[in-house]
Amino acid sequence: MHQLSSRTANLHASPIREILAVIDQAGMVSFAGGLPDAASFPDFEVGSMPAKYKQYGPSEGEPELRAAIAAELKQIGLRCNSEQVLILSGSQQGLDLVAKLFIDPGTSIAVESPTYLAALQVFRFFGAQFLDLGSLLANSNQGKPALCYAIPTFQNPTGHCYSADERATLANYCDSHNIPLFEDDPYRDLVYDDCNRSPVCSLLEKSSWIYQGSFSKTLSPGIRLGYLACSDDLLPYLTRLKQAADLHSNRLSQWLALQQMQDSNRLQRMQQLVECYRCKRDYFEQLLMKYFFDLASWETPRGGLFFWLKLNRNMDTKKLLCRSIDKGVAFMPGESFFPQSEHSASYIRLNFSHASTIEARRGIETLAQLISSC
Amino acid sequence: MHQLSSRTANLHASPIREILAVIDQAGMVSFAGGLPDAASFPDFEVGSMPAKYKQYGPSEGEPELRAAIAAELKQIGLRCNSEQVLILSGSQQGLDLVAKLFIDPGTSIAVESPTYLAALQVFRFFGAQFLDLGSLLANSNQGKPALCYAIPTFQNPTGHCYSADERATLANYCDSHNIPLFEDDPYRDLVYDDCNRSPVCSLLEKSSWIYQGSFSKTLSPGIRLGYLACSDDLLPYLTRLKQAADLHSNRLSQWLALQQMQDSNRLQRMQQLVECYRCKRDYFEQLLMKYFFDLASWETPRGGLFFWLKLNRNMDTKKLLCRSIDKGVAFMPGESFFPQSEHSASYIRLNFSHASTIEARRGIETLAQLISSC
Repeated sequence: MHQLSSRTANLHASPIREILAVIDQAGMVSFAGGLPDAASFPDFEVGSMPAKYKQYGPSEGEPELRAAIAAELKQIGLRCNSEQVLILSGSQQGLDLVAKLFIDPGTSIAVESPTYLAALQVFRFFGAQFLDLGSLLANSNQGKPALCYAIPTFQNPTGHCYSADERATLANYCDSHNIPLFEDDPYRDLVYDDCNRSPVCSLLEKSSWIYQGSFSKTLSPGIRLGYLACSDDLLPYLTRLKQAADLHSNRLSQWLALQQMQDSNRLQRMQQLVECYRCKRDYFEQLLMKYFFDLASWETPRGGLFFWLKLNRNMDTKKLLCRSIDKGVAFMPGESFFPQSEHSASYIRLNFSHASTIEARRGIETLAQLISSC
Repeated sequence: MHQLSSRTANLHASPIREILAVIDQAGMVSFAGGLPDAASFPDFEVGSMPAKYKQYGPSEGEPELRAAIAAELKQIGLRCNSEQVLILSGSQQGLDLVAKLFIDPGTSIAVESPTYLAALQVFRFFGAQFLDLGSLLANSNQGKPALCYAIPTFQNPTGHCYSADERATLANYCDSHNIPLFEDDPYRDLVYDDCNRSPVCSLLEKSSWIYQGSFSKTLSPGIRLGYLACSDDLLPYLTRLKQAADLHSNRLSQWLALQQMQDSNRLQRMQQLVECYRCKRDYFEQLLMKYFFDLASWETPRGGLFFWLKLNRNMDTKKLLCRSIDKGVAFMPGESFFPQSEHSASYIRLNFSHASTIEARRGIETLAQLISSC
């Protein structure tokens, strides 16, 4: 074999990837990915797109789109102008760029436990060591991370939404220890019950910050578009990293996203989307109450796309997944979401936005039977 | 300042980026970027695109597009099936993925001198040391690189097209020393005079390889789409790296690219594009013969998008650029293309595809006057 980089030793097959590969099979009920309901995608039309969007464009992104995003971020409390907005090729790219900026082999990063598995994957690939954010907030003497990564609003995988106190605690910790905060916020618009969604970055008084959002959940994942906003000190680095990664983001997608942001029907479309997902969540919870009442416990998610179930009995959920896929149902085993493997108890993550009601009933029933019979 | 990764010390502002920022100014004649003629872009229409392309997709890319690309690569001699094709978000992403796969701080990479500046930038960022590929081919005792990076067909910036002998020499070197070859081939379809364009990767008998192409020069840069094909041993790594970088490439772009590949008018469109660029090259050379005959020497490029001029007098071409931009003409100084700064003699790269004939005349005349007056 050839001489590959040492980081390649940390390059593992992704559970997401492998599951995405099977869920396309006909008849498979998928609770695995965070896939939006396909019926929610708007029509796209690029016939009236100005020709300049076919040419190379600026690494930072289209000025009009950056301005529109900055205006919305200001409304939710971020002190941010359009020059601080960087358009991304999906928020996965933000994870890559921020990892490149902060992580050397051995660098400590504080993360929630559990947290988004693809973030762990990228951070691990660049050599990160993980500190538990919850423990650090309780006792800050347990080490100083180079970065805090958090998903305060409808956390992935737990669905938890930080309270005002929890938000203040995280902001105070970052400020008082001068630790940059990387806030990942792809689900904030998918809110079903009243709750505090103030970006934690908006509460910071001193520390550097990166706030990231996505068009995948509210517009279309296929257009691969996200954005970040950050404090002025980090912007030149992230812009250069973006340029080195892919020169600039897709301009058709940027144009489509801008059209959607300026569409007079946008608010109505978002309300319909939220209403649709709220119904799906409620129906899913009814199914869980019926089939999982003695198998697992969970917190009702007030937003986002997932139920996070703690199974009552200890169980290898990766093995469970193999058997479940044989029966035509996919889900995400909990293990992959934990930074430290010793915490990988019997959890499963179930997405409720993608499956139809008929599929959801069949899938939940099948899964419950399988778990009962183990 | 915060604790940033050590690689950030190698994160320099890109000359391309800074020049792209000024060339949008009204009235600027740009010979700087490798921008296609805006008149060459076809119409785009996504109204008939199947809805599934709005959903998340496979990291490897759309199966139909990968099959279409593999079929074309087979025709030019690469032993390659569709499973070996990975769709990229532009070929800049290929540079990032391959750098991640091979480069640790201090890793030796063999590159042409001069070579594509954005490749040098990415390789440097990951900590590469550069060996001179030309010297290694003449005397292989000068070190063993972890990778050879080359642009054999209409090289950037020189425009040089390797002869059959040069192609065989590079392939033999990689095979006999078991060194992977990374062949970057974005310009191969822009061919104006008869010449050997066989991929060097197709001549390899043993060594691992990565061959990369782009849709930016023949379709549209704004759709940010490229691809790579590689030997079986490298594919799992590159697929995982792709997934960690941005999950998958833009599906609208992939659909548009597939429509273009299957379009019955495609061959005609390509012939028109090549004819247009051949005319532009010929006109540009006439201008150079008139205004630069006693200022510089050059090789007529048989394809691609650039003239590479060696100025007769020693000159700091970065300073020249500042003065040139003041007069409304942008070009690319030669320094940035050299891996070792000591070789950065008085070269400039001039793109001939983007400017109109009127702009080209004005730009060349202005630039010649400026150089004469230095």
